[in-house]
Amino acid sequence: MGSSKVLNNYGSFDVTFKYGKGSVLTDVNNKKYVDFLSGIAVNCLGHGYKPLVNAIKKQAARQIHICNYFMSDTGTAYADELLAVTGFDGVFFGNSGAEANEAAIKLARKYGQLNGGSKRKTIVTLERSFHGRTLATLTATGQEVFHPECFGPYQSEFKTIRANNYDDLKTAFDGTTAALMMECVQGEGGVILLDPEWAQAAAKAAHEAGAIVIADEVQTGMGRTGVLLASDELGINADVVTLAKAIAGGVPMGACLYRGKADVFKAGDHQSTFGGNPLACAAARVVLKTLTSPGFLDNVKKNGEYIRSTVKSWNMKCVTDVRGKGLMTGIQVNCDPVDIEKKCLAKGLLFSTAGKDTLRLVPPLNISKKEIDLGLSVLKSVLVYY
Amino acid sequence: MGSSKVLNNYGSFDVTFKYGKGSVLTDVNNKKYVDFLSGIAVNCLGHGYKPLVNAIKKQAARQIHICNYFMSDTGTAYADELLAVTGFDGVFFGNSGAEANEAAIKLARKYGQLNGGSKRKTIVTLERSFHGRTLATLTATGQEVFHPECFGPYQSEFKTIRANNYDDLKTAFDGTTAALMMECVQGEGGVILLDPEWAQAAAKAAHEAGAIVIADEVQTGMGRTGVLLASDELGINADVVTLAKAIAGGVPMGACLYRGKADVFKAGDHQSTFGGNPLACAAARVVLKTLTSPGFLDNVKKNGEYIRSTVKSWNMKCVTDVRGKGLMTGIQVNCDPVDIEKKCLAKGLLFSTAGKDTLRLVPPLNISKKEIDLGLSVLKSVLVYY
Repeated sequence: MGSSKVLNNYGSFDVTFKYGKGSVLTDVNNKKYVDFLSGIAVNCLGHGYKPLVNAIKKQAARQIHICNYFMSDTGTAYADELLAVTGFDGVFFGNSGAEANEAAIKLARKYGQLNGGSKRKTIVTLERSFHGRTLATLTATGQEVFHPECFGPYQSEFKTIRANNYDDLKTAFDGTTAALMMECVQGEGGVILLDPEWAQAAAKAAHEAGAIVIADEVQTGMGRTGVLLASDELGINADVVTLAKAIAGGVPMGACLYRGKADVFKAGDHQSTFGGNPLACAAARVVLKTLTSPGFLDNVKKNGEYIRSTVKSWNMKCVTDVRGKGLMTGIQVNCDPVDIEKKCLAKGLLFSTAGKDTLRLVPPLNISKKEIDLGLSVLKSVLVYY
Repeated sequence: MGSSKVLNNYGSFDVTFKYGKGSVLTDVNNKKYVDFLSGIAVNCLGHGYKPLVNAIKKQAARQIHICNYFMSDTGTAYADELLAVTGFDGVFFGNSGAEANEAAIKLARKYGQLNGGSKRKTIVTLERSFHGRTLATLTATGQEVFHPECFGPYQSEFKTIRANNYDDLKTAFDGTTAALMMECVQGEGGVILLDPEWAQAAAKAAHEAGAIVIADEVQTGMGRTGVLLASDELGINADVVTLAKAIAGGVPMGACLYRGKADVFKAGDHQSTFGGNPLACAAARVVLKTLTSPGFLDNVKKNGEYIRSTVKSWNMKCVTDVRGKGLMTGIQVNCDPVDIEKKCLAKGLLFSTAGKDTLRLVPPLNISKKEIDLGLSVLKSVLVYY
């Protein structure tokens, strides 16, 4: 079933979902699947989470969207709450991670112009990074596979350095650098953790060269790693943080937070028709309130450790590494990860691959112990054959 | 009230809305406003429209978002319905007009690569156009005010020609042209109508040079001009049509429709995490069904003509032109349009300006005669003083 004309773009699996409850999805044939993917780290409160559903219902009846030349009570309430809890000075709301990163790139360009003129324009990103699918965010993405000739020419004034590499830091930044832009965990790249000491040294070097630091937290932000913002824990003093995926529990939304010397946007510099609409903000308020409720993020940490220690304890031959932070886990394998993904799907477990050789587990942040154990039992039953 | 830290980006009016019903908005002080703006042509079914609200409520409880590596019953149903009624072969779903146009630009670049190699990359757009706020869509935008030095460098391989100018057509297209990209009515530019004969000649010349034609219908699409797609009525045989604003009645969504030789995207070429999520598609299904119900679009045409003939009948000194199509009306004035906008706002009527000297009226497509008359009476009472 389904329109093959949409699938073209994704090479999707032939599974059509109709319903979700907690961390369990049901397809049109009434088959159930444990959700270790949450729509790629999006459904942070799982499916059918009552406070989220109720907030969307109430807001939809009241006001879905207004023009950003005006305000909505829901939008301003959310902005105030988000800035208060994160400690940033201002925020631009868009509709996706790509849009959040486009905003950050424009912000960095303007910051550079104001602090060195047209010479200071370069944005330094990391190899194996992923920043989005628009032309500028593709250019920022440090993976050649995302730069096929057919979509070029790409943007100029971007360059990449190697993550966790001190040699590259020696020549990475100078008076031409507008920003260092990096994920705190490289999600699409294969759930690659940054060494905190290296990340701090890189941020310090960028700052010393007069550049700003952008943390792309589209995937790690909003609790995924067991803290609200992974960049805070990483200690890189980010001037800009971009958010999306989990921010509104599944309603399309993105955000670009900025502070201090990065507070350079003036009225008219950057806008979005839908950005920060009341429907998305109503959902985002529930997400923020839930994530910051006592014990919630501690539980994310605990459950993440449980998943990783359990997988490690199996001592599977095919598993070469188990890594991650909070409920973001990469399981590196020495065989075809897509093959494992497909076999697990057939047995009722959903996750995705990342990089070339890694299974990525990013379940809802409120997944229950029972659902975790159910999912792990399927994973174990498949891995044992490799 | 409200966070000044969000307002920064828009220079917003100090009005905070909390509620809408039909084409009337209520602010936090319980003041009411007739909505001739609909969130910039977004709230096409007005506010609190029962079938739309109910569809969002039901879908939110069932499934808000899934990963595009899989399908949702709602998403595939909408894609099938949209393609059936528009006659396109395929669709990419994003989350905004900028994302829809980024998809179209990437598609054009790939089409060019496949039909002339790296030489055929140029995208021709029109002066006074507006295509979005990402770096590539800004570059496409044919207004210098949107290209400040601070955000540069911009994309290469874009050029602009003058709308409705036959001289420019003589040298506009050749073997280096990948696409002609144009709005059917230049909304942000000042509600500028294209001469159908010129638009057809431009499209024909682009096609003869081996390029594709992209109709940016982010603002005109989905009924705004009294037909589902303005490009169909314009007779330009568009290979690609982009949609956003009205497509899901206020839920963030964008779409890039393509057909025939423009059907060049392969799996992995372009993706979006949120794009085509079931919540947006549930809303979009109601919009499409409502717009295509008997008589609906005829009524849009009739009400648009009524608005324009009424404003013309006033013979106001300050009004130099009244133009438009369907429920998209531009009122050109010989005084400060923002001053009129502010005075109308104070008296309970919402609209925006476009270009330098034009009032833009884009009310909900299902606005009642009574609401129209109420809004027009406010407008008249203000215009009479200029």
